[in-house]
Amino acid sequence: MGERDRPTAPGGPSGGDSTSTADELTTAAVGGDRRALARLLTAVENRTPLAEAAMRRLYPQAGRAHIVGITGPPGAGKSTLVAALIGEVRKVGRAVAVVAVDPSSPITGGALLGDRVRMQAYAADRDVFIRSMAARGHAGGLASTTGAATAVLDAAGFDLILVETVGTGQSEVEVAAAADTTVVLEAPEMGDEVQAIKAGLLEVADLVVVNKGDKPGAQRTASQLRAMLVAAPRVGSAGTDRPRPKQPEVLITTAATGDGVPELLAALDRHRLATTGDGGDGARRARLARAEAQVWAIVSDRLRDRLHDKRLAEAAAGTLDAVAEHRLDPYAAADDLLGLLIDAAGERPSERRG
Amino acid sequence: MGERDRPTAPGGPSGGDSTSTADELTTAAVGGDRRALARLLTAVENRTPLAEAAMRRLYPQAGRAHIVGITGPPGAGKSTLVAALIGEVRKVGRAVAVVAVDPSSPITGGALLGDRVRMQAYAADRDVFIRSMAARGHAGGLASTTGAATAVLDAAGFDLILVETVGTGQSEVEVAAAADTTVVLEAPEMGDEVQAIKAGLLEVADLVVVNKGDKPGAQRTASQLRAMLVAAPRVGSAGTDRPRPKQPEVLITTAATGDGVPELLAALDRHRLATTGDGGDGARRARLARAEAQVWAIVSDRLRDRLHDKRLAEAAAGTLDAVAEHRLDPYAAADDLLGLLIDAAGERPSERRG
Repeated sequence: MGERDRPTAPGGPSGGDSTSTADELTTAAVGGDRRALARLLTAVENRTPLAEAAMRRLYPQAGRAHIVGITGPPGAGKSTLVAALIGEVRKVGRAVAVVAVDPSSPITGGALLGDRVRMQAYAADRDVFIRSMAARGHAGGLASTTGAATAVLDAAGFDLILVETVGTGQSEVEVAAAADTTVVLEAPEMGDEVQAIKAGLLEVADLVVVNKGDKPGAQRTASQLRAMLVAAPRVGSAGTDRPRPKQPEVLITTAATGDGVPELLAALDRHRLATTGDGGDGARRARLARAEAQVWAIVSDRLRDRLHDKRLAEAAAGTLDAVAEHRLDPYAAADDLLGLLIDAAGERPSERRG
Repeated sequence: MGERDRPTAPGGPSGGDSTSTADELTTAAVGGDRRALARLLTAVENRTPLAEAAMRRLYPQAGRAHIVGITGPPGAGKSTLVAALIGEVRKVGRAVAVVAVDPSSPITGGALLGDRVRMQAYAADRDVFIRSMAARGHAGGLASTTGAATAVLDAAGFDLILVETVGTGQSEVEVAAAADTTVVLEAPEMGDEVQAIKAGLLEVADLVVVNKGDKPGAQRTASQLRAMLVAAPRVGSAGTDRPRPKQPEVLITTAATGDGVPELLAALDRHRLATTGDGGDGARRARLARAEAQVWAIVSDRLRDRLHDKRLAEAAAGTLDAVAEHRLDPYAAADDLLGLLIDAAGERPSERRG
């Protein structure tokens, strides 16, 4: 266990219930119960009190898995490559989990994509665990939810965790970039707009993979990418503040046939080795970025909860209303809300001392 | 002016300078100086103290423009449609601004897309203003930066503001959905993965436009979309909490030739009329969502600034480090950071009373 031992979720309305359920579920999930694991991930996705209680137990046991982000434009073949990687990883007996971050529906939750159906080939293999996640609630939730999900899977003993992001938006790229190793997938002959998105994606890549290697132009695309990568400045990503000391390798795969997939797995392992221990500045920063995204999302949730407290809700709603009607500017409103939060905190017995 | 009159940015290190510069720039921008406007938007994008000083002045003068979000998958022809809409709007003499939210580069800022070059046809027309914006910094910044940019353009007198989002990520969809009217663009015959993304996009649509209407399958795509929209539940978006009392209209355009563009502009105007005044619950909620995104981002920035204060920085960094190393769980860390923030606020003279 970690530095702290806080068995209950303080102040949570159903803290007691969550705690006993969390005890059972975390023990079961760490012991290999996949249903318990699935329930925990649902709690993480929905940010319930159970998620907090479970994370307080599981988080200190995590930190061993290799977390690999896989991103790229729609149509590059991410799901097919993920399926091929699963097959390759299973040949050597490693347990692998996939978190598919799916922005397809902000409302109804992630829909299963057609490609993902192929992964059901592994439905009977208990060392393969695949989960689609949709981030709900306010912006910033995506990084925090994904970080929590990987921590739960890590604690449950998965050695390799693939975080596949379907969207090409900023948040989705940040999620992938907060992995220990970030793979950016491309395909030959993509359109103009996709090319433009590519430039941004490349900045977060540790490895670049040209998929659909059997299509004409794959070699040429790989050469172009290598030229772009030499020309591009290797600065840290704004989202993750990672330095990129090395040019990323460019590999070619044909996920549909499996060509190049063993080489990709070997490259992932090399990157993992190169970034652990003393030389692991990049991976350390990625871990800090994941930690910060999670902690900050919780701070944010806590503050929002306080603004919805009976005593503050009316004043807070009035302030936001005034901004919506342009009677008050957002900076003055922010100062008002901060004042409300701090006054309210001062008026009640402190939770952290004692 | 608004309820408040706070001419200086309190506590800002360069508050005084920003204020005098902001005075000049906001006066110039409202008076029609486009260079001043561009400088203000750069300040908004970079979240400098000047942005705060300018927003405090300009925000109370905003609230009159029609803000239209335009989103859709890459390749649907968003930039071309935006260019066609500009042409149509200029025929009737209205001033139009475009904010192109461009996630193509999280690091170096938005790159100009090839299509956008076409818009330079309007470079000499001072009633057309086009601006690419990249969101920097932490997640959640996209909605807040875009909201602030539209407020500045609104105060500067633009009657119609188009917010074009290039990405298909969750944040980008939320940005588009926080407009008064949200247009989702589709094109005939898109691939499987794009189809899946489409379902999520449709949930935020006030108007659906099938572009590339001259391609085979456009009518069929429109019919399929109408069928999907009848079948889909009309619930509020998680990002914006908007109710959708009506099925969105499905229109067909060919942006490259201008076919259908006058009809689209008329539909936008109808939607604006239908949602202002008493019947404007949806638009009111969109305005509240925009206000909340902006206020919350500022609260978040203020708190982060405090954590980087000399007195707190070391303790905060230590806490995040402990989380990154899995010695501390993120919930305990969040409680620690909240405690630090509140204690620090209690120890210094209150800013809001007096």
